[in-house]
Amino acid sequence: MRQSFEETADPSFGPLHAPLIRRAMTEQALDGFLVPHEDEHQNEYLPAANDRLAWATGFTGSAGAAVILKDKAAIFVDGRYAIQVRDQVDTELFEVRDLVDGGVAAYIREAARPGWVIGYDPRLMSPQALEKAAAAATKAGAVLKAVESNPLDLAWGAERPPQPAAPVVPHPLEYAGEDSASKRARVGEALREEGGEAALITAPASIAWLFNVRGGDVIRSPLPLGQAILQADGSARLFLDPRKVSPDLRAWLGNEVRLETPDELQGALSELAGRHVLVDPAQSSAWFQESLKSAGAEIVLGEDPCALPKARKNPVEIAGARRAHERDGVALARFLHWVDAEAQRTFPDELQVVIALEGFREDTGALKDLSFDTIAGATSNGAICHYRPTRRLNRRTEPGSLLLVDSGAQYLDGTTDVTRTLAMGAPTAEMAARFTLVLKGHLALARVRFPAGTPGSALDALARASLWAAGLDYDHGTGHGVGSYLGVHEGPQRISKVPNAVALRPGMIVSNEPGYYKAGAYGIRIENLQVVTEAEPIPGGERPMLGFETLTLAPIDRRLVVVSMLSEEERAQLDAYHSRVLEIIRPKVPAEVATWLADACAPI
Amino acid sequence: MRQSFEETADPSFGPLHAPLIRRAMTEQALDGFLVPHEDEHQNEYLPAANDRLAWATGFTGSAGAAVILKDKAAIFVDGRYAIQVRDQVDTELFEVRDLVDGGVAAYIREAARPGWVIGYDPRLMSPQALEKAAAAATKAGAVLKAVESNPLDLAWGAERPPQPAAPVVPHPLEYAGEDSASKRARVGEALREEGGEAALITAPASIAWLFNVRGGDVIRSPLPLGQAILQADGSARLFLDPRKVSPDLRAWLGNEVRLETPDELQGALSELAGRHVLVDPAQSSAWFQESLKSAGAEIVLGEDPCALPKARKNPVEIAGARRAHERDGVALARFLHWVDAEAQRTFPDELQVVIALEGFREDTGALKDLSFDTIAGATSNGAICHYRPTRRLNRRTEPGSLLLVDSGAQYLDGTTDVTRTLAMGAPTAEMAARFTLVLKGHLALARVRFPAGTPGSALDALARASLWAAGLDYDHGTGHGVGSYLGVHEGPQRISKVPNAVALRPGMIVSNEPGYYKAGAYGIRIENLQVVTEAEPIPGGERPMLGFETLTLAPIDRRLVVVSMLSEEERAQLDAYHSRVLEIIRPKVPAEVATWLADACAPI
Repeated sequence: MRQSFEETADPSFGPLHAPLIRRAMTEQALDGFLVPHEDEHQNEYLPAANDRLAWATGFTGSAGAAVILKDKAAIFVDGRYAIQVRDQVDTELFEVRDLVDGGVAAYIREAARPGWVIGYDPRLMSPQALEKAAAAATKAGAVLKAVESNPLDLAWGAERPPQPAAPVVPHPLEYAGEDSASKRARVGEALREEGGEAALITAPASIAWLFNVRGGDVIRSPLPLGQAILQADGSARLFLDPRKVSPDLRAWLGNEVRLETPDELQGALSELAGRHVLVDPAQSSAWFQESLKSAGAEIVLGEDPCALPKARKNPVEIAGARRAHERDGVALARFLHWVDAEAQRTFPDELQVVIALEGFREDTGALKDLSFDTIAGATSNGAICHYRPTRRLNRRTEPGSLLLVDSGAQYLDGTTDVTRTLAMGAPTAEMAARFTLVLKGHLALARVRFPAGTPGSALDALARASLWAAGLDYDHGTGHGVGSYLGVHEGPQRISKVPNAVALRPGMIVSNEPGYYKAGAYGIRIENLQVVTEAEPIPGGERPMLGFETLTLAPIDRRLVVVSMLSEEERAQLDAYHSRVLEIIRPKVPAEVATWLADACAPI
Repeated sequence: MRQSFEETADPSFGPLHAPLIRRAMTEQALDGFLVPHEDEHQNEYLPAANDRLAWATGFTGSAGAAVILKDKAAIFVDGRYAIQVRDQVDTELFEVRDLVDGGVAAYIREAARPGWVIGYDPRLMSPQALEKAAAAATKAGAVLKAVESNPLDLAWGAERPPQPAAPVVPHPLEYAGEDSASKRARVGEALREEGGEAALITAPASIAWLFNVRGGDVIRSPLPLGQAILQADGSARLFLDPRKVSPDLRAWLGNEVRLETPDELQGALSELAGRHVLVDPAQSSAWFQESLKSAGAEIVLGEDPCALPKARKNPVEIAGARRAHERDGVALARFLHWVDAEAQRTFPDELQVVIALEGFREDTGALKDLSFDTIAGATSNGAICHYRPTRRLNRRTEPGSLLLVDSGAQYLDGTTDVTRTLAMGAPTAEMAARFTLVLKGHLALARVRFPAGTPGSALDALARASLWAAGLDYDHGTGHGVGSYLGVHEGPQRISKVPNAVALRPGMIVSNEPGYYKAGAYGIRIENLQVVTEAEPIPGGERPMLGFETLTLAPIDRRLVVVSMLSEEERAQLDAYHSRVLEIIRPKVPAEVATWLADACAPI
């Protein structure tokens, strides 16, 4: 079993660990210390060794921060985690505050006293977060001070898990589709056009993409933690823990890539004196900018130059994504058949659902990892957007309820991410009506044609308009980018109401996942991945349009569709999707699954 | 007749005036000079006295720039004006270049020689434009130099029209709905919350709104040109040409507003030494920032603090907008009846159409001005988005063609802006099909419900999706803000594919104007104004939603609607709109118009 149902932190962490941190603070004459969620790599997911916020407070969400002062402390989370934080953190010890509204800065302004020295670890803090905190400290008459040794790390000491050291391995051309030299040459060329002579690459996914390597330092994503400096001529220096490096890897990287140890990074930054160095402030901590500045480099702030080319999958990666989704579709058909044949009689709990689905994916023989912990939300747990089943929170499915299953797989040829919402027993009329509104939004976004230059934020409303017309909405984005055997969340594109200037371009893979959540009752989400394509020419049309090809191949629960709420166009679209699923998946599944699938994919 | 069909500039302007400008440049030892379209007030429309770009080049578009070097010259326009510029400007003298792609900066980098001194007038240049130009000059080894006396103005000399000096008059509370003291107090309070002690207000519409005054310095908008300094306590200093000031105005402004002359402005800026002063870099030229900086003020860059409160109309302004649109609807019904009763027999030219419409508006007895020159685009002229009929470009309407009429009025109680596209004789099937696609987009945007926090850029695609699905699109935004007896284009909200973070809020008035243009053939646009409202609660809905109330009251040409292309919902929506138009307008028009209107508003 890959997924664990244990909890890695609990509310005792704060009372146990905060005194240790405060003692280490005192030894450095600090009156306070900032604990961001982010680690040295500013990546979405952390290795256990770097989840400092969880160790200090018990909170395991994917975003947040804490401030530990000598006399009090606070934890900061966004609206998604407002409930979870009270479940995980000792709120006697940590005041709970909003991460966005006011945030760390407002707390520092209120709680810091004149003359106080508040420490921070520059290797962890983003330049923006640091700037705001420093301004707030100044207003309070306090100062921020960069620490050499992180007092939290000192307090954690021997209990701290070791740093990950999974081998970094070649990602063959049959999956990558373009060799590293070609990628480095074209990113270097783009860099030169922007006036940069070198770029600092710190995002683990960018390192994986640029050098055609994969690692295992972060659970659920084949990411290698490390850093690189790319020169405009395409040569590069790659800094990796030597324990991760095999002779194979040296040969794979070739002569233009100098493999070095993390200890050599600071020296390499110093050698950039006088050069124009591109740094992405959203991907690298303040330490990098400070090191470059003090070395005399000219910092050019800009987006990670790998982000956009990585997001646009090449034909080999797209073919791989189709294969991965066919394979995943077989596992999903077997799982959905199991739900109907078994679960609709036995009403299993969430853990059993997760175990069953993981088993079918394991049976493909190609599963490298899950792409995230499966969310199986039975009854009211389905309404919690960032739910992860654990032994403690586990619920049984029930007749007359919904089961929301959001899951994905990492295969060498592609990353999947799919959500299906299933009627357990007979759904209520309200459940079906709201499912159908979500479906209408999903279908609208799947069939849209749009001109080049359109950002995802311009399409978001298409997925919501049916819900809005009913006085309903959902509090998450509609679509995120997805990597090619990389992170299941990647930028720079995004389908969301938050304005975003990044145009959707052919080859980008995005999710299409509108939802509806009734707190305390049930949750609905329908998610497919789709790749941006150049749409076939439209008769009578005058402009080339882009569109989407749906990658995910799994039936949508027809029992939840109120057919009378769909237009003819929507019915035809749903039927066409189901007929494609049937055509591709039926030949690959056992006979009883094939029979079930034909029913599940019958015209509506 | 308010609208003129004469052209105020022609291609001879360049050959006549550029040598004069070059002579004045030589006297100041300048090797080049920058000529922006913008004037001292950075406003959309210019008084004739400030249309320097037109005098220098002949180009009369609403955006652009020129660079006059000693040995060559260029004019810069955006895509909208690519055709018009070649019609208006001597292209032997002025190289035509793209304003956006490369723009002035790229030209300076290419064409300037080391050692050259290129002049600019800091009162006219926006800080952003100046910064880019200065960087380009540096790369070319040249320098930019601020001039004391504008060489173009010196060359223009006695030929230049006088500066406008229309009286500034009170805008009574029965139209404004909130007195100036209350507006100044709440804007001052918002300013304080943002850390400002004073704000520089330079946008003419903001001055008009803040002090409840109207002027006549700019054609088609009742704007007073001037400047103001608002203090956080709500007191203000207002700088106006004394010729515009009557004793009535002094009494109206009260004791908290000190009325001063433009000569006193620089001194007043000096008195802001050490204070935090809010400046909107999009609304004020570089001169203001330079003056404040050299006076020792702390500049806080931000949006004009009047922009958002001005955009949210109060109940009195909304009631006024409804009245203005009813009045305008009477003129429109009489005009559309005239088209059917007369023009469909006589096939008049564009000028006759403009004259007829202006006559019906004049007959209301309440017309203060047009809100812009009426665009009557017959046949292929309808495909030119920024068309204005002139004697030279004038075309006759023809059987089997479309007539696009975009027009608006300034009334004391509100500003209108409406576009109708009319079938002259029998339209082709293609015309009707494309009209219906535009109509579907217009209806989708009119009926949408959306939650608080949604920016206009999130709704834009709703107006385009039907066209996109047919491989079609239009190259302009879908909606702009509209003032209350103020500018017909106002921000900060906007419905456009360009990402925009400003949420639509109750009371904002926006246009809804999708279109389709077939170059050389015909143009289609359907435009109503609509005000953002709190939508009535939706049965079963969970969240409060916003929506739109349509203000414009004029039938949409049913002869151009392909009924089979509309959904039942769309048909009902169109019928409901027409029945509302009929109910409100029928009692106010002569009998033969009422009879015609009943037909025009019959269910589809």
